Amino acid sequence: MATETRIDTYLEEHLASYIDLIIRLCKQPSISSSGEGVEQCARLVCEVLNEHEINTAPYQTPGFPIIIGKKEGKSKRTLLFYNHYDVQPADPLELWDHPPFEPAVEAGKLYARGARDDKGEFVSRIAAVMAVNEVLGYLPCNVKFLLEGEEECGSPHLADFVQNHIEDIRSDGAIWEEGYVEAGEYPTLTLGVRGILYIEMSVQTMTADAHSGLAHVLPNAAWRLHNALRTIRSSDSKILIPGFYKEVIKPDEKEKALFDKWPDAGNLWKEQYGLMGFSDNLEGSQLRYAVFDPTCNLDGFGSGYLGYGTKTVIPSKAMAKMDFRLVPNQDPEDIVQKLRHHLNDEGFGDIEIKVLGKMNPFRTPIDDPLVDLSVRKGEEVYGKPVLIGPIATWSSPVHAVAHPLGIPVVNPGIGYWDNRSHAPNEHIRIKDFLNGARHIARIILDFDKLLPTD
Amino acid sequence: MATETRIDTYLEEHLASYIDLIIRLCKQPSISSSGEGVEQCARLVCEVLNEHEINTAPYQTPGFPIIIGKKEGKSKRTLLFYNHYDVQPADPLELWDHPPFEPAVEAGKLYARGARDDKGEFVSRIAAVMAVNEVLGYLPCNVKFLLEGEEECGSPHLADFVQNHIEDIRSDGAIWEEGYVEAGEYPTLTLGVRGILYIEMSVQTMTADAHSGLAHVLPNAAWRLHNALRTIRSSDSKILIPGFYKEVIKPDEKEKALFDKWPDAGNLWKEQYGLMGFSDNLEGSQLRYAVFDPTCNLDGFGSGYLGYGTKTVIPSKAMAKMDFRLVPNQDPEDIVQKLRHHLNDEGFGDIEIKVLGKMNPFRTPIDDPLVDLSVRKGEEVYGKPVLIGPIATWSSPVHAVAHPLGIPVVNPGIGYWDNRSHAPNEHIRIKDFLNGARHIARIILDFDKLLPTD
Repeated sequence: MATETRIDTYLEEHLASYIDLIIRLCKQPSISSSGEGVEQCARLVCEVLNEHEINTAPYQTPGFPIIIGKKEGKSKRTLLFYNHYDVQPADPLELWDHPPFEPAVEAGKLYARGARDDKGEFVSRIAAVMAVNEVLGYLPCNVKFLLEGEEECGSPHLADFVQNHIEDIRSDGAIWEEGYVEAGEYPTLTLGVRGILYIEMSVQTMTADAHSGLAHVLPNAAWRLHNALRTIRSSDSKILIPGFYKEVIKPDEKEKALFDKWPDAGNLWKEQYGLMGFSDNLEGSQLRYAVFDPTCNLDGFGSGYLGYGTKTVIPSKAMAKMDFRLVPNQDPEDIVQKLRHHLNDEGFGDIEIKVLGKMNPFRTPIDDPLVDLSVRKGEEVYGKPVLIGPIATWSSPVHAVAHPLGIPVVNPGIGYWDNRSHAPNEHIRIKDFLNGARHIARIILDFDKLLPTD
Repeated sequence: MATETRIDTYLEEHLASYIDLIIRLCKQPSISSSGEGVEQCARLVCEVLNEHEINTAPYQTPGFPIIIGKKEGKSKRTLLFYNHYDVQPADPLELWDHPPFEPAVEAGKLYARGARDDKGEFVSRIAAVMAVNEVLGYLPCNVKFLLEGEEECGSPHLADFVQNHIEDIRSDGAIWEEGYVEAGEYPTLTLGVRGILYIEMSVQTMTADAHSGLAHVLPNAAWRLHNALRTIRSSDSKILIPGFYKEVIKPDEKEKALFDKWPDAGNLWKEQYGLMGFSDNLEGSQLRYAVFDPTCNLDGFGSGYLGYGTKTVIPSKAMAKMDFRLVPNQDPEDIVQKLRHHLNDEGFGDIEIKVLGKMNPFRTPIDDPLVDLSVRKGEEVYGKPVLIGPIATWSSPVHAVAHPLGIPVVNPGIGYWDNRSHAPNEHIRIKDFLNGARHIARIILDFDKLLPTD
């Protein structure tokens, strides 16, 4: 019997115990934004890894612990798994059909906060490692687990940790989180993530709000911030900060063409969000290509009176939350400096900028052998072509890990298009869990063949 | 002894009883925005007028009662007093040194919600009428009192009421509220008020907020409203709605020159509001002249996430509250139609406009004999030149009353520059009350001489 068949059989036979393991992890809240249960969950993760004979240690950081687990294989090559054990808050609780921390299996789905993001995904890697190890009697490559507890808060301590523990996590390739099956049941593989710069801009023009009868003379903070925003972004979504696009690497035709194989997203998004149309009248393939462009998003704008009826007031304070999604090779540190200079040059030196989060973009080259391996094995498991996304819509701290290590990163995973991650009724489909584990097991099998031995 | 001297003596001798009357009225809350005590206050006002042998009747409206009081004089000429018996809410309560509805007299000042705005002012007119009547044994002209209970809510029922009871309030001139003594103890007289159009603009671009990773394709409601606002107002405060300025009557040099006599407001406002500078770098006399220009004020703007830290979200809804201060002869009804057409023409047909309040501007000609009489009598009472403001910064429903009656309106009053109307610690200075009553009594004395008898 072929090794792959024996691995699949092992995974099917042990499926119930891995589902139980996901349930055990999901029962433990680990909400990094409030801190609820995060330390307990870190201990549980170490326990679980050690139970599977993965040699594990937690490391303290200024935030929550980072956990490294290692299991040796026959070759010198090492495959790294990135996951996180923290989860998003569960509110609004009333919209959950099952309590978020009381996992429930129903009609082939497992419901819980963290089921997909990211505890189920973590367990799928344990299952893959165990399957290969049990079937072969050894691992053909070393594997390392890297788990952090602050991903949902922007991974503020990961980059420093990696710099300080680079030898501990040294590896030759990494499997990231957030892989998923697209509508139409197409497996996907994402080779890059966008960076992000999240800021809060605020301004105060007076010591207190004033009567709007004086609007002809007194400076209105809401208008002032509005006027500053006019200089940052044009009505047709172009970002006007000088030098903003300077480091952007335009996609080549080969990369753009990858998106042509994806199903048309227009109708899907239109229905999902009840849209009349898209930003800047985008349509067709542009909807996919647009992900190569950085964005400037207004997450929130608040100023003045927002209550019922009227209040004739000149607001003295205004605040905007904004995120810039960045593409290779933009650097959030560079962008925030350019923004500061731009505002000063435009006469908005009084507008304060507070950086609330930042991540660099990252992209694995399409022709990296790990990409080819992941695509081949994906097509074997799913029996369908793998849709390759050269860059994802979301941001993730890939750069913090992969850049200092100089390694390729792919993301075969257990998600599907309607997982409700970050939302009520987060869930996974059991079949996606199984396929994800099968996919990763096959990558483990052949990972050492990809690369020249030392 | 001259009549004026006897009037002053009467007012001084009866001062305590009129202060008691203000206290009696201010003890009765009458907050029109919540409805608290307004009906009770209407009954109290009728009681007070009848006690002074002013023939009074309350009229029901779709909102709170409007009260008309009449007292006959020797001539056929009629002088109308406009006041309102409702007050602003008193919160934030913790900032009051005395409870807002427990009037307190301290160091020549009377503290209470409504002390100036507008119960003290109302009592000053009763005192003036009584003084003239007692000293002469008759009134030389008819007087009418018109009091509404919804001024602090934008007087939504006054204009209709006036149309339907025009004969009841027919008169030859009116004394409005909100007169005051400017810093430097200069009496003022204001001949006009700006109109107002208060609107709420809102837009919804999606059925729910979305992940900001899709900002390159999904329409952001905050940006959409921001973009609409860009077409409404330029960065240097010009209003861009086509035809907006069409009906504006530019001030002539005589009107502008009236402001040259006013003290420089720059330092006063700078200190009061802790400013670095004024809107559009206005300075010097421009700070006064600018009141001739209509304004577009952003009272509030709310969209998306405004809480602590980060949330990467594309807001699906955005809302702005705005007020346009209008100058003669702009019409709020016309302006809102022009705004609607403008937004449609600019492709913003999806932005909803809700009208929350509107008033027309009004201006009494400088050469009206009532202006001359009021200025002369003011200089007599205060011993200082009267500062004439051709138009006020604030809005007031003068047009609703004076336009259908075709009468001039002036506003000698009891305020001073630091009354804290609408704010904690609202108060009057007792001396201003006395001067206001003396001023109005002198106008009553000579009002019938101004106009040809029929």
